[in-house]
Amino acid sequence: MTANAQVSTDIVLFTVQTDSMKVLLVRRAAKPFKGVWALPGGFVRQDEDLADCARRELEEETGVAGFYLEQLQTFGAPERDPRGRVITVAYYALIPSGDLVIQADSDADAAAWFPVGDLPELAFDHAEIVASAVKRLRAKLGYSTIAFQLLDEQFTLSAVQQIYEAITGSPADKRNFRKLILGFGELEETGELSRDGAHRPAKLYRLIEPDKVTIIK
Amino acid sequence: MTANAQVSTDIVLFTVQTDSMKVLLVRRAAKPFKGVWALPGGFVRQDEDLADCARRELEEETGVAGFYLEQLQTFGAPERDPRGRVITVAYYALIPSGDLVIQADSDADAAAWFPVGDLPELAFDHAEIVASAVKRLRAKLGYSTIAFQLLDEQFTLSAVQQIYEAITGSPADKRNFRKLILGFGELEETGELSRDGAHRPAKLYRLIEPDKVTIIK
Repeated sequence: MTANAQVSTDIVLFTVQTDSMKVLLVRRAAKPFKGVWALPGGFVRQDEDLADCARRELEEETGVAGFYLEQLQTFGAPERDPRGRVITVAYYALIPSGDLVIQADSDADAAAWFPVGDLPELAFDHAEIVASAVKRLRAKLGYSTIAFQLLDEQFTLSAVQQIYEAITGSPADKRNFRKLILGFGELEETGELSRDGAHRPAKLYRLIEPDKVTIIK
Repeated sequence: MTANAQVSTDIVLFTVQTDSMKVLLVRRAAKPFKGVWALPGGFVRQDEDLADCARRELEEETGVAGFYLEQLQTFGAPERDPRGRVITVAYYALIPSGDLVIQADSDADAAAWFPVGDLPELAFDHAEIVASAVKRLRAKLGYSTIAFQLLDEQFTLSAVQQIYEAITGSPADKRNFRKLILGFGELEETGELSRDGAHRPAKLYRLIEPDKVTIIK
């Protein structure tokens, strides 16, 4: 009567590249769904904590490290895996774009970033998991500092706006956006200016509490 | 290397009674932790969805039905259960107080409501699960209509304020509170007045979308 289940973790890793929100997928090298794109993930080891498993699987399968990780939701529909009862604890993770080196390991024969709005067919219920992660991230934008996990330690307000616009998929009014973001009360000026390319020098900011995601009251 | 785990659900059921936020606990009739208070819950059946399991366990162990249910978080520390690897998908649930009839079933020899601020010793990691649920509920108060799941279909603004004060544990200014709640744009007047006891008649309100928890933008 009681289910003896396999437990796995799957990870939705987001970044923003060239003004587009992207998610990391791996192509499965083994059955089931061989050759089909899927989220990085795998089975929890006997003495392994769930978040440790998610971190390990993401690092092993893609070579990515140094990401923000948060539990998303657990998916356990009885028929979600053809191998038998597999309950997966889904996580989502955020990483600033930049020189991300992606490598596929033995469970995956390729790893690549895909725009959230243009995903290939996904294995298992992974499309549902991605949709749930996108929804959570968009919701948290409005009441937390989650988006700053996609930025480097120092950033201009224009860079913040680009991140928000990429995630919401819609443009923001510059003046209102700055008022909203500074109104969070979570940013401080570094005292430095950004001088890149054709733009006018812009003030650089950083999070007052860079190591945590703060809920805005 | 791969964990074959037992999977359970545990449910943190909240209500507000006499201006106090309370959680439903059952006293364990069997080992481990025999005689110790714990959250209602139990093992997932072979072909059972996770939310169905949570709903069934809560109904079976306590006789409660008609509650709002939402997945909270999955707890899977390797040593959290002395019987072996048990990963539990925690849910939280809300129900309006009123004539709740609580009955303990065979797995529990008693069921009772406890104030969140004055809980007995709890079995397993259930104290951590309750703390996580309280934190989630308090956070969602500020940006969603979650609190209305603790109210009857029609309610006065004073009743809403009592719910908020019970959950946050701090008094609210009446005028500011009304402005905030009506500012959500999720309530409508029923056209009726509440006439109970010694109070002046007060307008009755209801949710425009009573069957869902709406995120406030």
